[in-house]
Amino acid sequence: MRWAPDARGRLERAAFELFAEQGFAATTVPQITARAGLTTRTFFRHFADKREVVFAGDEIPTTAARLIAEAPADVEPVEVIRRVLHQVAAARFDDNHAQTAAWRRIVESNDELRDRDARKRADLVRAARGAFVERGETPLQAAVLAELGVLVFQVALDTWAGAEPGSRSMSATIDEVLAALPLAARP
Amino acid sequence: MRWAPDARGRLERAAFELFAEQGFAATTVPQITARAGLTTRTFFRHFADKREVVFAGDEIPTTAARLIAEAPADVEPVEVIRRVLHQVAAARFDDNHAQTAAWRRIVESNDELRDRDARKRADLVRAARGAFVERGETPLQAAVLAELGVLVFQVALDTWAGAEPGSRSMSATIDEVLAALPLAARP
Repeated sequence: MRWAPDARGRLERAAFELFAEQGFAATTVPQITARAGLTTRTFFRHFADKREVVFAGDEIPTTAARLIAEAPADVEPVEVIRRVLHQVAAARFDDNHAQTAAWRRIVESNDELRDRDARKRADLVRAARGAFVERGETPLQAAVLAELGVLVFQVALDTWAGAEPGSRSMSATIDEVLAALPLAARP
Repeated sequence: MRWAPDARGRLERAAFELFAEQGFAATTVPQITARAGLTTRTFFRHFADKREVVFAGDEIPTTAARLIAEAPADVEPVEVIRRVLHQVAAARFDDNHAQTAAWRRIVESNDELRDRDARKRADLVRAARGAFVERGETPLQAAVLAELGVLVFQVALDTWAGAEPGSRSMSATIDEVLAALPLAARP
């Protein structure tokens, strides 16, 4: 959610401004490119469609899978989840509350975006499950742990994005969600 | 997944036969209605589009929310989840392994269906969350418990549907998944 000063970043920024001002459905690609001072040809070089701008630059599944696989073998799975989510929160979210809140509002405003968002979540589960299998978990345990990690991420993201700016960090919200789960091993 | 001998049921049965034989993408609505001996007008009276046939008659969110809200107040949340999932499994799945397995294969075969399936899961979480709030849980606890219940349902469904027919019941698979979770209160 941090935008670089390149063409892609300018298009993302312009798109999010317009989505916030007038809604996702009412915003057209020519409006986005006009605001960014770029051509529609440039837009379609970076994004397959308008919907993809909303989920652009989403490397979370790859990053999360790498961090899970790299965690020391003697760390308990729930602690692996906690550490990975803290790293993702610090790198991507903690300093970007306003952008994240705007992003979640846009996603929730549109059924097509909710579909795509749900699918992105399923992709994240899949990536995390593969990483837990790599750590030597059984397929069933890997599935359960991947789902559990994404559960914590999703509830924390929704809670944090909906909270007052500055009232808490995404990292602290992750710990709150972990504490609310009836888990045997608390963080 | 049990088909009544009415027009809707005949259309569902014909559609699933064709999806299994030649794939979801290759199957047309006229092919479905021809196999069912009905008109396309009848088809569109029952389903908005071909995709909706795959998720037809899905009352699981409503049923699950009712069962959660009706569970006695002194039952622990994880035990509520276990009981509700057992009831859903007995009513909808245990006697329908072949149909369920075919259904999951069709969903997994097509990206559009995976999107819709992920969205259906999000709808189920939403319904369960509301029911846990009704039981007096805080919004955060309700979110976590709803996600946890749907996690168990989803992993159990995928595991059971992918297992050899007759090797286990959906109900037993639910208990396996609960046992694989690092929960404080085991079933």
